[in-house]
Amino acid sequence: MTINNNHLPHVVIVGAGFGGLRAARALAGASVNVTLIDRNNYHLFQPLLYQVATAGLSVDEIAYPIRGILRKQKNLTFIMSEVKSLNLKESEIITEQATIPFDYLLLAVGSETNFFNNTELQQHSYGLKNLQEAQSIRNHILNQFEKAVLEKDETLKRAMLTFVIAGGGPTGVEMAGAIAELVRVMHKDYPGLDPQHIQVVLLEAMDRLLVHLTLNSSTATTKALATKGVQVRLNTRVERYDGRVLQLSENQQLPSNTLIWAAGVQAASLVRELSQEKLPQNRIKVLPTLQIPQDERVFLIGDAAYLPDQHGQALPMVAPVAMQQADLAVKNLLCMIESRPLHPFKYKDLGSMATIGRNQAVAELFGLRFRGWLAWLVWLFVHLMQLVGFRNRLVVLINWAWQYLFYDRAVRLIEKGDCD
Amino acid sequence: MTINNNHLPHVVIVGAGFGGLRAARALAGASVNVTLIDRNNYHLFQPLLYQVATAGLSVDEIAYPIRGILRKQKNLTFIMSEVKSLNLKESEIITEQATIPFDYLLLAVGSETNFFNNTELQQHSYGLKNLQEAQSIRNHILNQFEKAVLEKDETLKRAMLTFVIAGGGPTGVEMAGAIAELVRVMHKDYPGLDPQHIQVVLLEAMDRLLVHLTLNSSTATTKALATKGVQVRLNTRVERYDGRVLQLSENQQLPSNTLIWAAGVQAASLVRELSQEKLPQNRIKVLPTLQIPQDERVFLIGDAAYLPDQHGQALPMVAPVAMQQADLAVKNLLCMIESRPLHPFKYKDLGSMATIGRNQAVAELFGLRFRGWLAWLVWLFVHLMQLVGFRNRLVVLINWAWQYLFYDRAVRLIEKGDCD
Repeated sequence: MTINNNHLPHVVIVGAGFGGLRAARALAGASVNVTLIDRNNYHLFQPLLYQVATAGLSVDEIAYPIRGILRKQKNLTFIMSEVKSLNLKESEIITEQATIPFDYLLLAVGSETNFFNNTELQQHSYGLKNLQEAQSIRNHILNQFEKAVLEKDETLKRAMLTFVIAGGGPTGVEMAGAIAELVRVMHKDYPGLDPQHIQVVLLEAMDRLLVHLTLNSSTATTKALATKGVQVRLNTRVERYDGRVLQLSENQQLPSNTLIWAAGVQAASLVRELSQEKLPQNRIKVLPTLQIPQDERVFLIGDAAYLPDQHGQALPMVAPVAMQQADLAVKNLLCMIESRPLHPFKYKDLGSMATIGRNQAVAELFGLRFRGWLAWLVWLFVHLMQLVGFRNRLVVLINWAWQYLFYDRAVRLIEKGDCD
Repeated sequence: MTINNNHLPHVVIVGAGFGGLRAARALAGASVNVTLIDRNNYHLFQPLLYQVATAGLSVDEIAYPIRGILRKQKNLTFIMSEVKSLNLKESEIITEQATIPFDYLLLAVGSETNFFNNTELQQHSYGLKNLQEAQSIRNHILNQFEKAVLEKDETLKRAMLTFVIAGGGPTGVEMAGAIAELVRVMHKDYPGLDPQHIQVVLLEAMDRLLVHLTLNSSTATTKALATKGVQVRLNTRVERYDGRVLQLSENQQLPSNTLIWAAGVQAASLVRELSQEKLPQNRIKVLPTLQIPQDERVFLIGDAAYLPDQHGQALPMVAPVAMQQADLAVKNLLCMIESRPLHPFKYKDLGSMATIGRNQAVAELFGLRFRGWLAWLVWLFVHLMQLVGFRNRLVVLINWAWQYLFYDRAVRLIEKGDCD
């Protein structure tokens, strides 16, 4: 391994998500040595994770080997390892296998599911932040059908076939829509099951879905989900969940074997030690230059960084923010090396969108609002084009076409051995 | 669940491999109720399992949901469950969830890896009989590269990059060829690794590979593997393996972190209780009608069945035998119901083949022997056509074309959570 040869500055990037990967690529050709560290050997296309969880896509279609992406970048070394802690005083980071010194550090560690310290909830519900969780959800949903078909007790059967998603943000909405469509496909496989026993429920603590969009889009989304058979319950909070019955606000109960938790994320634990200040989503404050206040050599970008926009609102935890910040962090880092002044971050908001399933999406892009079939087509195209690798694009396209034409889900496989 | 309605005879089939699935389909339209039981919810195309193990194909491309295949068969119920034991006296089989009565039983349980009671070997080496094992092998091989690139000790590094396959049958040969090609792709991802440190070793206890083929084909196979960089060691047995060093016959030692065990299979444990007679591969003797001697209502087919051919040789444990036996077992079963005489099994040997990798295969089909590029094309075509489902064929074809054109392996993903 050749780290820090030629006495060039050594830049360590932690995380190969949208932000970290973009930063690594932006440093190609720069007079620095780059070490990129990730706990996995692949870059994950998180926006399509819910399609793996609902048997639409397979794992290899949304994950791409990092070494394959960066093969030609001569100034970069990739290390697959879990970073255990940061030692800024000694200018090193500690991984499972080694201690790695840095001159500059770029933290792009992303976010993880936030169960708000409710360990019972954490134990019994499913997050949706990585491939293992997506596969666990898929296995679990398919298993519920296999169990239900053998179950004679009506109450137990109903709980097996009640799929609850908590959180009405984009992840919760997309997940609910996708499960509703999966359930319809599954039903063909289980002629013995009464469709009346199956329900998909989306819970949202606030009074509307997709709060970051306009009220119009929220209302349209609720309506579209209802058409697909999703029960949307607004103003409803999950208080407790023991794996069998959900305790909801206002003393409601909902028996269900499945709770998918899309109601909270927080900055990855690795960086939470960097500051004691309590900010929303446990994010860590960064300067407008994307440096952390306590160490100018350390840049922090993406979901884990707390940076208010001109209205005092924290930037959303989405890929475009992470990628734009990666560009600026790299620019500023090179400015530092050359002793030039640094630039503040300005977010160019391209808008946002969410699919509700087949033929249905809402989009607010470039100041335009549209929904339905056109929004759905735009969503498909944008996501397809962002996937890494031509093979992945082609195979995902085939799978989508297959699902669309045949109302089928190809990956209805219960894979054992996922420690579930 | 509707089992045994209309008082039609109830046929239970255990196993949805090549034999069981074929039998289930052959019973479509017959005046019987069929229950098909498998521990998985998918039919696995085992001949391509080694390509999953070597990062060439993804899991969903060689596995197909059983309910999807049999959706339209009205007289069939599928149950996903592990069969725990057979109670022939009471005419029932005991699964994890339920006890299922039968009038006729068709056992198509297949085979499992045979470690010859060497528990140390079993613990440290990898079998290749199911999806979990294939994924474990893939994760393990890729992990060895990630570890080796960080390892400073030359001896340890060499052991990490030494991949040993025991058993020179078709599985061992295909696995060795595929690993040799994977290793060449991997090497591009690890410019820091010395190719001299990487070795792929195929061990065979007998004096030639592929003993079921002619000596000519064996010799050609050894040569083709050598060209691909596989060290073939004939007349070499594995005595012990502790996960670090292989103890071979004649006191040889071979340090390696990876042993893939393709040197033995045996009848699945479920049926081994049926007879005390010790037959090769612990198979169970069947009558020429494919019934077991102790119970005429029970048919046993495929890998687990011991039936000598006209030369007194046991039939090979391959898919064509299982499928031809499925056809006859179903025919005989219906004859029994209608009190007509039963027929003896006659195997129509279509020949056999094995790929050695890119552009290389040996085939002995319809009395013809050929090898090289043509045999390889035939192998590709035959296997592609046997896959269940048009989507699978298309996606496998794309992956194969991709690998062929770009010397790439798309599924180089280390997936966690496989309890490895």
